[in-house]
Amino acid sequence: MQALRWHNAKNIKVESVELSPIKPDEVEVSVAYCGICGSDLHEYIDGPHAIPVNSCHPISGAYAPITLGHEFCGTVSQVGAEVVGINVGDRVAVEPEYRCGHCQYCKKGQYNLCESMGFIGLMGNGGFASKVNVPSYMLHLLPNNVSFEQAGVLEPAAVALHAINQSSLQVGQSCIVYGLGPIGLLIIILAKLKGIENICAVDMSEERRSFAKKLGATATFDAKKSDVMSDIEMYMPSGYDVAFEAVGHQATLTNSIHSVKKGGEVILVGLMGDVTINAFYLVNNEIKLISSVGYRNVYPELIQYISQGTLDIAQIVTKKVLLDNVVEEGFESLIKDKSQIKVLVSPAEFIS
Amino acid sequence: MQALRWHNAKNIKVESVELSPIKPDEVEVSVAYCGICGSDLHEYIDGPHAIPVNSCHPISGAYAPITLGHEFCGTVSQVGAEVVGINVGDRVAVEPEYRCGHCQYCKKGQYNLCESMGFIGLMGNGGFASKVNVPSYMLHLLPNNVSFEQAGVLEPAAVALHAINQSSLQVGQSCIVYGLGPIGLLIIILAKLKGIENICAVDMSEERRSFAKKLGATATFDAKKSDVMSDIEMYMPSGYDVAFEAVGHQATLTNSIHSVKKGGEVILVGLMGDVTINAFYLVNNEIKLISSVGYRNVYPELIQYISQGTLDIAQIVTKKVLLDNVVEEGFESLIKDKSQIKVLVSPAEFIS
Ligand SMILES: [Zn+2]
Ligand SMILES: [Zn+2]
Ligand SMILES: [Zn+2]
Ligand SMILES: [Zn+2]
Repeated sequence: MQALRWHNAKNIKVESVELSPIKPDEVEVSVAYCGICGSDLHEYIDGPHAIPVNSCHPISGAYAPITLGHEFCGTVSQVGAEVVGINVGDRVAVEPEYRCGHCQYCKKGQYNLCESMGFIGLMGNGGFASKVNVPSYMLHLLPNNVSFEQAGVLEPAAVALHAINQSSLQVGQSCIVYGLGPIGLLIIILAKLKGIENICAVDMSEERRSFAKKLGATATFDAKKSDVMSDIEMYMPSGYDVAFEAVGHQATLTNSIHSVKKGGEVILVGLMGDVTINAFYLVNNEIKLISSVGYRNVYPELIQYISQGTLDIAQIVTKKVLLDNVVEEGFESLIKDKSQIKVLVSPAEFIS
Repeated sequence: MQALRWHNAKNIKVESVELSPIKPDEVEVSVAYCGICGSDLHEYIDGPHAIPVNSCHPISGAYAPITLGHEFCGTVSQVGAEVVGINVGDRVAVEPEYRCGHCQYCKKGQYNLCESMGFIGLMGNGGFASKVNVPSYMLHLLPNNVSFEQAGVLEPAAVALHAINQSSLQVGQSCIVYGLGPIGLLIIILAKLKGIENICAVDMSEERRSFAKKLGATATFDAKKSDVMSDIEMYMPSGYDVAFEAVGHQATLTNSIHSVKKGGEVILVGLMGDVTINAFYLVNNEIKLISSVGYRNVYPELIQYISQGTLDIAQIVTKKVLLDNVVEEGFESLIKDKSQIKVLVSPAEFIS
């Protein structure tokens, strides 16, 4: 079958590989759609970051070259001997976090913190392929009225919902979102769904700001303006209850901290390195810095919203491409064209 | 009357001053004990930090020279015209935070975040004096079985309890306390009272570590050891649920972050300036940095514990001195002698 293989930074290509034999606890999924994630781009541009190169991942046993793609859904085409409750023909979404099942975090249900944490599609062969073998615990059955297009966006929506869950944001409060990539935009959609009326958004791109407005942002601010902070303050003089930092930069982190009211929360969703923080300001204003990584226990909620018709995450899909063209029309397009938000890749044809 | 006045750094002295006329909403308290706080020492050593010098505090209307002392209790000796429910002769503890009563924070009961926040004894004339006029909202009546010695330690105990309340520490979890000054030691006493069985403590001073053990710490670690982190890890390989940073240094903050398990919390109690944080580590381990400043709504709980006999905070009192000798026997002694933890000052005699 065809699969997008990561060999090295700037060296990814669609090539013919053989699907490994299915294990007793695995399910073979025939991929409908697989979304391209920012982390895929990072691996492409200057990886490896998460991809194991010199040693194999403790759960998957895999290492580079690896088939990329962790945001996928499809139809079950084979079921391992020990798997129960999943049948050939079932439509499924894949929650791509590996988990060991027995560490202190897995035992508490915090499997996103699993000591052997990893993602299929980064630490194991993923969904930019016709078929992929997936541990059965990763699967969520899709109701018939949840399209593959929606299901292809579940993974970043899970990141966004987990970030909201890490906060104590509630109805009547306000929030501000720094960074309008897929995660920032999905936070806006989900915050609106949760009844938040004041959702502000900050980004450098005018296109993304107007997209955010379309999705429900009440006000947007141009991060390129030197006095953006005074605009942000003027709009909400009492300060925001929660800021989501979905960029991963020092400057947006600093601005996030200075956007929230006393006692407010900054949710760190973007990944960054060493940062400098004014701890005096932080403590005196009793501001919380709350981290959010991956997701746990949110897929069923998201699938239910979509099935009920209250959530439309496919709104952020700006393009669908065929696997054969994924590098040029997918990866390169996302790098060059800021109007592209989420690109879904299909190994064969564009199913809905 | 005699009062300890702050004129300038290194320039504090007991001198004769006149008590300002009592306002309608004030109560005159004849001081029994007033504790010396780390912040008093800071004002003495290299102030002003919090003391208003060039403009007056919005609530107290005061500025330097100012009578220090915010950790005090005593007996009501006069009651303003508008005050109800407080009578001459009542034994009271003073919760020294000014609050405006009408800002967004005061309205929510978060008066420690009041937009006009300040402390009597720093931003207004305080308790190192025979008498002090206090806004009536600061007063808490003391049951007869709560001694003035206990009440003299309520203020730092409130800081410690609020820090615990800011965390989500609960029975069955573990914590580690960095810094064994009065706040760190009181966190240990209160964590133990709350049923926490694993309470570890880190400090450079051997005396303070053995004091911590006496108060209920399960294990202590010598911060002077270069491999202290491996000792800390070895004792609790699964990591601590909560770390309290009660020092206010970069190094102890970094160690706090590396002590907690994934999903753990670092409570920032100590004041520091700019700090560098490895945000990649923070986010990947979903660690929370939670700030704690002052206290709110905790005095009644503390007073009840003491009255019930389950809490003894006077254990940290290492010395009592007369107001006349407060600079030499109090301030200078605390600076020079690390075995001194909490020094209570009495304007007249040592009452219990
Ligand atoms: Zn992703
Ligand atoms: Zn695990
Ligand atoms: Zn104090
Ligand atoms: Zn206020």
